[in-house]
Amino acid sequence: MTPLITEKISQAVGILREFDTDCWLTFTRETAINGDPTLPFLVGGDLTWHSALIITKSGRTCAIVGQYDKKGVEDLGVYSEVIGYVEGIREPLQETLRGIGPGKIAVNYSRESEICDGLTHGMYLTLCDMLSEIGLKERLTQADQIIGALRQRKTPAELERMKRAIAETERIFSEVALFIRPGRTEREIAHFMKECANEREIPFAWDAKVCPGVFTGPDTAAAHYSPTDRQVEEGHILNMDFGLKVEEYCSDLQRTFYIPRKGERAVPPDVQRGFDTIVRAIEESRKAMRPGVTGQSIDAVARRVITQAGYEEFPHALGHQVGRFAHDGNALLGPAWEKYAGKPFLPLEAGMVFTLEPRLTVPGRGIATVEEMVILRADGAEYLSTPQEALILAG
Amino acid sequence: MTPLITEKISQAVGILREFDTDCWLTFTRETAINGDPTLPFLVGGDLTWHSALIITKSGRTCAIVGQYDKKGVEDLGVYSEVIGYVEGIREPLQETLRGIGPGKIAVNYSRESEICDGLTHGMYLTLCDMLSEIGLKERLTQADQIIGALRQRKTPAELERMKRAIAETERIFSEVALFIRPGRTEREIAHFMKECANEREIPFAWDAKVCPGVFTGPDTAAAHYSPTDRQVEEGHILNMDFGLKVEEYCSDLQRTFYIPRKGERAVPPDVQRGFDTIVRAIEESRKAMRPGVTGQSIDAVARRVITQAGYEEFPHALGHQVGRFAHDGNALLGPAWEKYAGKPFLPLEAGMVFTLEPRLTVPGRGIATVEEMVILRADGAEYLSTPQEALILAG
Repeated sequence: MTPLITEKISQAVGILREFDTDCWLTFTRETAINGDPTLPFLVGGDLTWHSALIITKSGRTCAIVGQYDKKGVEDLGVYSEVIGYVEGIREPLQETLRGIGPGKIAVNYSRESEICDGLTHGMYLTLCDMLSEIGLKERLTQADQIIGALRQRKTPAELERMKRAIAETERIFSEVALFIRPGRTEREIAHFMKECANEREIPFAWDAKVCPGVFTGPDTAAAHYSPTDRQVEEGHILNMDFGLKVEEYCSDLQRTFYIPRKGERAVPPDVQRGFDTIVRAIEESRKAMRPGVTGQSIDAVARRVITQAGYEEFPHALGHQVGRFAHDGNALLGPAWEKYAGKPFLPLEAGMVFTLEPRLTVPGRGIATVEEMVILRADGAEYLSTPQEALILAG
Repeated sequence: MTPLITEKISQAVGILREFDTDCWLTFTRETAINGDPTLPFLVGGDLTWHSALIITKSGRTCAIVGQYDKKGVEDLGVYSEVIGYVEGIREPLQETLRGIGPGKIAVNYSRESEICDGLTHGMYLTLCDMLSEIGLKERLTQADQIIGALRQRKTPAELERMKRAIAETERIFSEVALFIRPGRTEREIAHFMKECANEREIPFAWDAKVCPGVFTGPDTAAAHYSPTDRQVEEGHILNMDFGLKVEEYCSDLQRTFYIPRKGERAVPPDVQRGFDTIVRAIEESRKAMRPGVTGQSIDAVARRVITQAGYEEFPHALGHQVGRFAHDGNALLGPAWEKYAGKPFLPLEAGMVFTLEPRLTVPGRGIATVEEMVILRADGAEYLSTPQEALILAG
């Protein structure tokens, strides 16, 4: 744990310089109850009382925590100062900030980005009270650029964990392909996959109620819905959405299966065409990815492939970043819809890990979806997952 | 899950009437990332996009959620309206609130209470923007009284879960008593307890790094610190802090053990006196508990027992509420210290579940701590745990 924290805190100092921000303050309490999603980059485990984790442009690192949390934070060995208090954080926090005398104090809130929005409104008000008393309230600013950069620029250690999560997920896709057959229910298939993960003691990348998502045939409820007692039928498409977490880093992949009818020698043309369109949408959008372009333009590439082939466009973004959460990062490969706010217009940057997950309906068959994971490098995006190039025949 | 949600939402409507609040709005997004601690009372599982859970004094219940979350929320069967959206929440939220025309809209923030402070600052700003446009921004108020009441008034279903968590914890205390012996390390003892819980597939009530806390002898780092390689020695006191979670409801208990020296026939008087003082502090403070009194006055009872016996006072509160979190609720049995803010001055109320956990140091021996759990009834507090009345001799 600590090497990764050391690595990320050192990365943070560089980011503060890049964005010319004197001081980044993560202000939190009872993190087991209201955890700031930035916290795992800054400290291991939970903090109980009001706590301030301060990193400055000059490389100073200071943690102010309740007395009983002090030794745990000291043992991390990443903060040059660890201050413990008994009665309240006001005095040590004010003294430390007065000492730094920052022109800007970036704190963790953001309208647009949930991963940069860990500061609760009550804690924001408390901080304003304390900063007003020392004339620093007007220095507050949002840390969204800092946190965004920190999360999206994956270090080698972070990537290595994600690759292991992907490999474990792909192994389970291979295993379940042999389990799927007509008559099996979505619930049974999901249960089988969960057991595969549990045997290896690997946690799920998101809420286990919908991880995996398993959707068979033309009448499914579609994404984000728990597996049902609907049975697999011949001639139908089955798709699934699954992710695992290895040392806190996620995979998020989808695969499409076809269940041939008795005696059927080849995949029917409508099914094959739907699947091929998805694969083409992924590959064309991947090839369009470059640092500096917007996610909106990449989403448009895939959306165009789908609609030009005569299918309805998918009602969601083409892809999101992945990291400690299955949905991570700010920049999004998405359309200009209100709910995505400014995320589709942020420029892509090397080090970002994205999913590519277009979807289309094959009438009477089911939903074709494939979700791959790619990492953006200086010269383009490369697959982290092993891309699905053919329908998986099951049954 | 759903019966408990139905029960709590119906309780919430009563609480809104009691506090004369027209409308309670829980506003959240990507709850797997930034979960509002109130959410498990209102909905099962996670919500992905901007979501509004609205309960009115008149008993109307409305959920506005992203399209893919709609079916899951509908299936709960507790919301009379479930509205799904594709592009953004602005329009359906504004329309719904205009329809309600509330005089007050309570939202989840609080300076003082972390459990009532689930609204992030970024989401608060977004909500202000949307409410400004329909002239309702000035109606915003804090929901801390509502959430506080909802969390602290335990229903029979909630209590039943907590009792099971306590029983499981006590069973593990009995088992570990036979495992403790001179030479065993804190780490080994903690590992043994964890294994007992894992065998029964019962999760821990808090961060597994410090659950259990195991502290042996006079040189321990004290609470909130991970078990070390320090060995159990004869003539020392060992204490531990442990809690489990049964169907999302916690226990939180401490027990004190003594490791007799070879040939020692009775517990040495200094150890016995320390332990007896702790037990007396718990029992006297329990007997003083009544609805309407403040936690500060109860804390003072225990603190006085300890200091009048000549020991240093404990550097923490006497007790906290327990629920879905090991530290739950607003009212606290604590002293008037800055970090506890107004919590020690809130009146106690029937239905609250508290810990009682004084501590003292027996010089050269270790730390005597016992933590019991009690529920406050109209006529006083009764033990939920089986009170420790004698030192547990181990080794």
